[in-house]
Amino acid sequence: MTMTSQADDIEPFRAIEVSQLAQKMRARGDSIIHMEFGQPSEGAPQGALDAAHGAMSGGDMGYWESTPLRERIARHYGEQYGVDVAPQQIILTCGASPALVLSLLTAFSAGSRVMTARPGYVAYRNSLRALHMTPVEVPCSAADRFQINARHIRDAAVTPDGLIVASPANPTGTIIPPAELAEIAAVCRERNIQIISDEIYHRLSYGIETQSMLNHDPDAFVINSFSKYYGMPGWRLGWLICPQKFVGAARARAGNLFLSPPALSQHAALAAFDCTEELDARVEVYRQNRALLIDALSQLGITGIAPSDGAFYVYASIAHLTDDSVTFCKKLLAETGVATAPGIDFDPDNGHQFIRFSYAVTTEMTAEACKRLIKWLPQQPLQMIG
Amino acid sequence: MTMTSQADDIEPFRAIEVSQLAQKMRARGDSIIHMEFGQPSEGAPQGALDAAHGAMSGGDMGYWESTPLRERIARHYGEQYGVDVAPQQIILTCGASPALVLSLLTAFSAGSRVMTARPGYVAYRNSLRALHMTPVEVPCSAADRFQINARHIRDAAVTPDGLIVASPANPTGTIIPPAELAEIAAVCRERNIQIISDEIYHRLSYGIETQSMLNHDPDAFVINSFSKYYGMPGWRLGWLICPQKFVGAARARAGNLFLSPPALSQHAALAAFDCTEELDARVEVYRQNRALLIDALSQLGITGIAPSDGAFYVYASIAHLTDDSVTFCKKLLAETGVATAPGIDFDPDNGHQFIRFSYAVTTEMTAEACKRLIKWLPQQPLQMIG
Repeated sequence: MTMTSQADDIEPFRAIEVSQLAQKMRARGDSIIHMEFGQPSEGAPQGALDAAHGAMSGGDMGYWESTPLRERIARHYGEQYGVDVAPQQIILTCGASPALVLSLLTAFSAGSRVMTARPGYVAYRNSLRALHMTPVEVPCSAADRFQINARHIRDAAVTPDGLIVASPANPTGTIIPPAELAEIAAVCRERNIQIISDEIYHRLSYGIETQSMLNHDPDAFVINSFSKYYGMPGWRLGWLICPQKFVGAARARAGNLFLSPPALSQHAALAAFDCTEELDARVEVYRQNRALLIDALSQLGITGIAPSDGAFYVYASIAHLTDDSVTFCKKLLAETGVATAPGIDFDPDNGHQFIRFSYAVTTEMTAEACKRLIKWLPQQPLQMIG
Repeated sequence: MTMTSQADDIEPFRAIEVSQLAQKMRARGDSIIHMEFGQPSEGAPQGALDAAHGAMSGGDMGYWESTPLRERIARHYGEQYGVDVAPQQIILTCGASPALVLSLLTAFSAGSRVMTARPGYVAYRNSLRALHMTPVEVPCSAADRFQINARHIRDAAVTPDGLIVASPANPTGTIIPPAELAEIAAVCRERNIQIISDEIYHRLSYGIETQSMLNHDPDAFVINSFSKYYGMPGWRLGWLICPQKFVGAARARAGNLFLSPPALSQHAALAAFDCTEELDARVEVYRQNRALLIDALSQLGITGIAPSDGAFYVYASIAHLTDDSVTFCKKLLAETGVATAPGIDFDPDNGHQFIRFSYAVTTEMTAEACKRLIKWLPQQPLQMIG
């Protein structure tokens, strides 16, 4: 009658534990540098804040989905990627998370098998399980640049129903180059595998071109949001681009499951598209932070770092230091005030030997974090834990 | 391997069609009275707006769940209902809709059978289907006051896994009285049926006491939001009260599926709890509107009205006028500018003979709508359509 639920093993984020410790320390006066979450320390750009203030006296504030914002996003796909997206294909959601839920529930059924990279964003695995689907995790090593490639798909024992790709990826920041995207799209088309492309870290890259999956597969679902480049995580506004054939089914689901996205955030987000100068300046800050952090880690002998092509993450191997990244992160926090995320959140198999830094903070904070690390780490015993 | 998906027959809201027509008419200068959605025409109370303006310069604005708001909601349950709710049982969500999704995914598996009343809020049926569960709809007539009662549950051919109750209900406004709530809780306890109680229309009642299901079943999930009494639909903030035994499972799901609720809305909502005078004055407006509307409908011979105990709805039989409520609503709109919702959204079997008015508008608007109805309806042919 009911399928066996796989949902019992859904784990909470361990980074939240670290963050809660950090907040307690800050409350008692410690100096904390928050690098544990993928959350820009600068908030919404000024133009977005101004629009929000304005909208509260007279703008649409009810159950509402903004047509101008959907048109603006569609235009962005033409300008940024040279692809045609109709405004009606765009569904505005309360952040990227429900956009993922919506795409999964539109494209798949209970029991469907969906392939993801490991390490990867923990919510892929957990949301699939919560929705009664089966995550098929592909272990991706440094040799794969921690990304799924066409070979992984070809070699799968059972052809999956779907594939989630993320480029730039969380936790690594690695980008899938255009030729590889094309090859993934081709093999998925051949085998009738539905692609969901998480592009939430687009516009945050440091040299390698980020193409949209839509450049290669017009029938991919694409997820994005205003939480990263646009600096508006707490505004909870994301979007899903639906393949034409799924628009009706996805809209019906969105209305029932979520009703509508936050009104104020839609007014603010439309304005955020005109804040490119302010937002691009932040990307330059991230670029400096990235260089500082990688340099400091190298000095400390932490050289097993995933190619940090984009996003604002450094995912580093600490295998020579510990077998227990959670304890490592907690000790690092307790003794230096630097909060980081244990790799175990992203990779249950190998994440105990990895740590993720988010450098979406100021350059001053990054420099201070590096200083504290350089002072602290050499004082630790060679094989410090476990 | 994959279950047969029942999700293909998820229908969009027909009221949205009516509303889109109304917007087009308004754009070309027609005078429209919007009674098609359950959306207060007054927005957030002033104190909430002030708090939102303030929070934009200095408040928490990232991924964040407000502890003070959860504590304030917990206190409200003590004050309003005399029940103990721990702040950790409260999960803040992007409106009541994802709170329903979260409760369903926490309590049930794919294939689970969940009982609901028909007529009822369309998203119960559709969200269940979208989540690969099976809605078991109980036809509830005027004799049942359009509500599920203990007898319906006892008489079910197959004992369901769960039950959704809504009091006051949408579309009818009927309230389940305390003794009946107690009996429902008892029969569900006896048969191990998990209750989800949608209490989104609480604080909107006109004489009959609204108890929480928690007064009778401490292990019920309870859904509520700031969209109705508090006047903040577009702020997308709701809450789910989880039974203690489900708190861990629900929190893990919420973090993965939805991440966090809108930050600004949480600041505003905390302030809304101190705007009781302004909000209670609106309830008095609704009380007047309700009387005006029921009186006008009676004058017109529309007397088959569900007991409008609470919420801000009148659900009226138009069986003597038509067999096609969608066409009726569109004609009414086109010829009078009064936008309403066809019953078919709430009851696929009998809703073609019903219409729903939302009177969460000003008294002036209600009076004008009544005037137009009284002028228009007698001009229609006796059996006007179908």
